[in-house]
Amino acid sequence: MFRPEIKILDCSIRDGGLINKWQFSDEFVRATYKALSDAGCDYMEIGYKASKDQFDPKIYGKWRFCDDDDVRQIIDGIESDMKLSCMVDIGRVKKEDILPKNESPFDMIRVACYIKDIDKAIATCEMIMDKGYETTVNIMAVSTNLEREIDEGLNDLGKTGIPIVYVVDSYGAMYSEDVTFLVKKYQNALPGKTIGIHTHNNRQLAFGNTIQAIIDGANFLDGSVFGIGRGPGNCCLELLLSFLQNPKYHLRPVLQLIQDHYLPLQSKIEWGYIIPYMISGMLNEHPRVAIAFRDSPERDNFVKFYDKLTTPEPEEQTLG
Amino acid sequence: MFRPEIKILDCSIRDGGLINKWQFSDEFVRATYKALSDAGCDYMEIGYKASKDQFDPKIYGKWRFCDDDDVRQIIDGIESDMKLSCMVDIGRVKKEDILPKNESPFDMIRVACYIKDIDKAIATCEMIMDKGYETTVNIMAVSTNLEREIDEGLNDLGKTGIPIVYVVDSYGAMYSEDVTFLVKKYQNALPGKTIGIHTHNNRQLAFGNTIQAIIDGANFLDGSVFGIGRGPGNCCLELLLSFLQNPKYHLRPVLQLIQDHYLPLQSKIEWGYIIPYMISGMLNEHPRVAIAFRDSPERDNFVKFYDKLTTPEPEEQTLG
Repeated sequence: MFRPEIKILDCSIRDGGLINKWQFSDEFVRATYKALSDAGCDYMEIGYKASKDQFDPKIYGKWRFCDDDDVRQIIDGIESDMKLSCMVDIGRVKKEDILPKNESPFDMIRVACYIKDIDKAIATCEMIMDKGYETTVNIMAVSTNLEREIDEGLNDLGKTGIPIVYVVDSYGAMYSEDVTFLVKKYQNALPGKTIGIHTHNNRQLAFGNTIQAIIDGANFLDGSVFGIGRGPGNCCLELLLSFLQNPKYHLRPVLQLIQDHYLPLQSKIEWGYIIPYMISGMLNEHPRVAIAFRDSPERDNFVKFYDKLTTPEPEEQTLG
Repeated sequence: MFRPEIKILDCSIRDGGLINKWQFSDEFVRATYKALSDAGCDYMEIGYKASKDQFDPKIYGKWRFCDDDDVRQIIDGIESDMKLSCMVDIGRVKKEDILPKNESPFDMIRVACYIKDIDKAIATCEMIMDKGYETTVNIMAVSTNLEREIDEGLNDLGKTGIPIVYVVDSYGAMYSEDVTFLVKKYQNALPGKTIGIHTHNNRQLAFGNTIQAIIDGANFLDGSVFGIGRGPGNCCLELLLSFLQNPKYHLRPVLQLIQDHYLPLQSKIEWGYIIPYMISGMLNEHPRVAIAFRDSPERDNFVKFYDKLTTPEPEEQTLG
């Protein structure tokens, strides 16, 4: 599958940080930066930008904040054509936290929002674009929205200059036909804009759904090294690189990175195919209940988890 | 996705046995039989049928041979509507090894072959059907065949009474468009026959490809509990059950089986997403080199494995 317009964005540190509160060593992040650069990856998303009054820096590592100086320390001395990205959540970043582009190592700042906050996201994107950055809107949890709401949000987005809009399968609930439905819908509502895809691997469909999005015309693809990401994780970058036949991509540096850094890390923090996340994915639910369950002593009692999510309490009344 | 014609065949013991030479405890196989029965699974494939002069029973467990009496011991006393299947390889079973259906606990005997052996497979299937069993032909490694060869094999199959023919992604090399291409081709060449799908998970596409085959019209679906199977394993039965919305299927017994038996087993024998198998899948190669590599002290040296498979030796001449 070769299409020169396709760009890959690696979100290993940003999404992986959701597992360990962004407590990665500098060596780990530097190794990631170098390997992704050597692999020809187009963008690396190194974390979230957030105000320090929102999160305690004693608990959260530096990639929860993405200070420009911290970034400079990581990339210093490494040859790279790769662009750098960070993500912001609506309401968790102030205008003052973001320097003008020409004073910053970042090229892109992505905005994650729920459909109800789309107008806030548009305002944030416009502030970001005014400062000189590339930007995207990533509409989360869209598998739980009514089509009417999605259409209304896309209609608002269509009137803006925001160049890239993502289909995000936050709950890992979608399969190929859902992906096609949404990618086509986004394309029709947003002529001239690039469509992105960000998948979660709850049902082992992250890569398959990304392939489906490529077939349907999505050109901005998120992946993460060895699939790192909260719970089931994301689409594996190495699978994506091996699938796209663009000669600018190189698999070998990512394999080296996995064996040196990501495989050892996986013995300390968990991600991958884990039954409670499979269940939350199939039920189209936020993974928060699965996360809590995996932190409890009953973490491998899959049946108990399944019953908890699927069997109403005796006193619970139907809502019909 | 509800289609009443769909049948699920679980191949956990048969394909999982390729990892541990079929050395499963009776308790494990009985628990599997009971859980699959309770889950509404249509068929359980309990092993390979083979002559004892082909394999040493001191090395290989009983499910390499599938003696009818061994099967009876497992299923004794368990209520079940599930049918039982075993597989035979061309040339590894003799006519005398197979009793008439009315003397056997088996309902189905499946025949695995490469496309070059299709006529031998047809003869074996006819012998099996003459004895009263259901049968299928599973054409292995079809991702490595020329279309001309496939067409010729399908043409031969079209003249027979064999009711079910499988698309098999032996090397875990296919993605959705390959699946569609083959399922449609099989359907066109074999009107009136049922098409089956058996996938391997080298590139995390086993479930996604099975969904694609369902969309394309395949009605016989192979899965295995927790994906057990040699190397990357197969399409997870629990994912398949949760996807199909047929009320006859029940997920809970399979979750119980995973937590009681398959999760503990996975800490002793490996299967799942493992980089050397990802590499053999992406290269459309037999997993034998990956299997040997995972048995060596260098098992996690992914770059060395990648180089071995992709870099020609200096003395190797091109074949152009």
